[in-house]
Amino acid sequence: MAEKIRIGIVGYGNVARGVECAVAQNPDMELCAVVTRRDPSGVKVRTEGVRVVAASDAASLVGQVDVMILCGGSATDLPEMGPQYAAMFNTIDSFDTHARIPEYFEAVDRAASANGHTSVISVGWDPGTFSLNRLYAESILPDGAHYTFWGKGVSQGHSDALRRVAGVKNAIQYTIPVEAAMEAARSGSQPTLTTREKHIRECFVVAEEGADLTEIERTIKEMPNYFSDYDTTVHFVSEEDLKRDHSKMPHGGFVIRSGKTGDGNHHVIQYSLDLDSNPEFTASVLVCYARAAWRLNQKGGTGAKTVFDIAPALLSPKDGAQLRKELL
Amino acid sequence: MAEKIRIGIVGYGNVARGVECAVAQNPDMELCAVVTRRDPSGVKVRTEGVRVVAASDAASLVGQVDVMILCGGSATDLPEMGPQYAAMFNTIDSFDTHARIPEYFEAVDRAASANGHTSVISVGWDPGTFSLNRLYAESILPDGAHYTFWGKGVSQGHSDALRRVAGVKNAIQYTIPVEAAMEAARSGSQPTLTTREKHIRECFVVAEEGADLTEIERTIKEMPNYFSDYDTTVHFVSEEDLKRDHSKMPHGGFVIRSGKTGDGNHHVIQYSLDLDSNPEFTASVLVCYARAAWRLNQKGGTGAKTVFDIAPALLSPKDGAQLRKELL
Repeated sequence: MAEKIRIGIVGYGNVARGVECAVAQNPDMELCAVVTRRDPSGVKVRTEGVRVVAASDAASLVGQVDVMILCGGSATDLPEMGPQYAAMFNTIDSFDTHARIPEYFEAVDRAASANGHTSVISVGWDPGTFSLNRLYAESILPDGAHYTFWGKGVSQGHSDALRRVAGVKNAIQYTIPVEAAMEAARSGSQPTLTTREKHIRECFVVAEEGADLTEIERTIKEMPNYFSDYDTTVHFVSEEDLKRDHSKMPHGGFVIRSGKTGDGNHHVIQYSLDLDSNPEFTASVLVCYARAAWRLNQKGGTGAKTVFDIAPALLSPKDGAQLRKELL
Repeated sequence: MAEKIRIGIVGYGNVARGVECAVAQNPDMELCAVVTRRDPSGVKVRTEGVRVVAASDAASLVGQVDVMILCGGSATDLPEMGPQYAAMFNTIDSFDTHARIPEYFEAVDRAASANGHTSVISVGWDPGTFSLNRLYAESILPDGAHYTFWGKGVSQGHSDALRRVAGVKNAIQYTIPVEAAMEAARSGSQPTLTTREKHIRECFVVAEEGADLTEIERTIKEMPNYFSDYDTTVHFVSEEDLKRDHSKMPHGGFVIRSGKTGDGNHHVIQYSLDLDSNPEFTASVLVCYARAAWRLNQKGGTGAKTVFDIAPALLSPKDGAQLRKELL
């Protein structure tokens, strides 16, 4: 067997621990290092023999790590970390601030290209496999419309927004697609669907003792951007109930394209995910793109890339002949 | 606007006419020529200004056609036609005899490589987009199992088999996936499903006058390979009913992967198609891969390819920046 692909992780939160699990499922890879901004001595990595390195010493891993998987957040971590690490390593990240992707791509591309590295940005499921399905489906059926639905799943951003409401001790928010809207998307009528028509938001809230529940509910439902454009329901529950019933991080969703060919024949292409663990699934996507980045780099394909630029065969440990025999 | 990609079609059956419609939906392409083994003067092409050329004169189109889409059958046409045309043109085909893909790939690869052409084989939905989804899903969730279900749809091969039964005047066969088997596939239990458990076969048969219906039904249900391994139902209908209710060519199906990550978290990835017209959808896939073949050839990527080797961005008329902005 060829040498294993040496994987490093920056960060050690939920997605990073998912990367650790995913690397263990792929015999052609090994986890070599975890880079942390905390005190390295305080970070206990599950896998044995993995070096824990302070972010300030990340450069010491050059030559030790083939692909660095950046598990930072998109708001503040990645805009800085992406170009910085792309100058030192091949990288994979899950940058998902949609409006800033063009500038982020440019910044990472400059750093990666100048140093002969390959950096795949915005990997995961949305952006990621959902994006791929939007692209494939639109290319096949140019005369059509596509619809993305999210859920049922926990939105971290919306849960955080709930927790910032006065009188709220803890909370979880589920995004739920509306079945009638999904049916309309598949119908071939190519409807324009409003934000309110597509998703509902369900909140499970633990209130502080003596808090005004009516006021909390009103504040949530009127919160701009997060809840005011949606039909939102608020359930007050105990801390114990929240822990017991709402501590997992399920998610998923649907990409639906409806299109026409010939003399009015209608087609529906649908891709869907039903995930027990959003961070572990995201991590699994990151890991197979790490394999692709490494191979692409070996062939001289440097610079910033997205999932759109990666030939599918690069993701699999199987070679071309085996893929054609087993999966074509 | 750049020059249009000049498309040729070999054959002028259902898929070829679907290609003609699909090219008309893609403003960066134009249909230039139809190659036929019949007398060219007897072939009426819908699009104006398209040359109809005898197969024996196909070489006269070298330099006139950028990509030739081969709409022949896999049994006898393509094994000969594939390498022959790959020596003259960039080609796309929908070769679907699974067991013979390795040797077909080799033969086309030799012809294409020796002449600097790019030939994408086995394009369509299965093999094709279903294969892509098997590959993506397996790469993301290596610890899992995948299941392919076909239908509800008309199987041309099984309909032909019905028509060969003594006393049968005309017939249509539908392949129908079994809902309980699809549920089992999604359950996470990774069951082994038998042929009989996965699909049922429903036949609509027009009998010749005076034929022994009981004997026809028995012959169908006991037919090896085609029907004996399935729960098969046979309905006798009039020629008028068959024409009215069963003259379209719908199809579709599901690719389901069920897999595990971490400490037993379960995920389901599902891709499905619901198609009014199997040949028109297949043609639409062929056409966007023609764009990819042409671009790949311009960049020097010659030889035989499959959908696994084609970066998704090559399929779209949009450039990288636009794709990242609109679809990522």
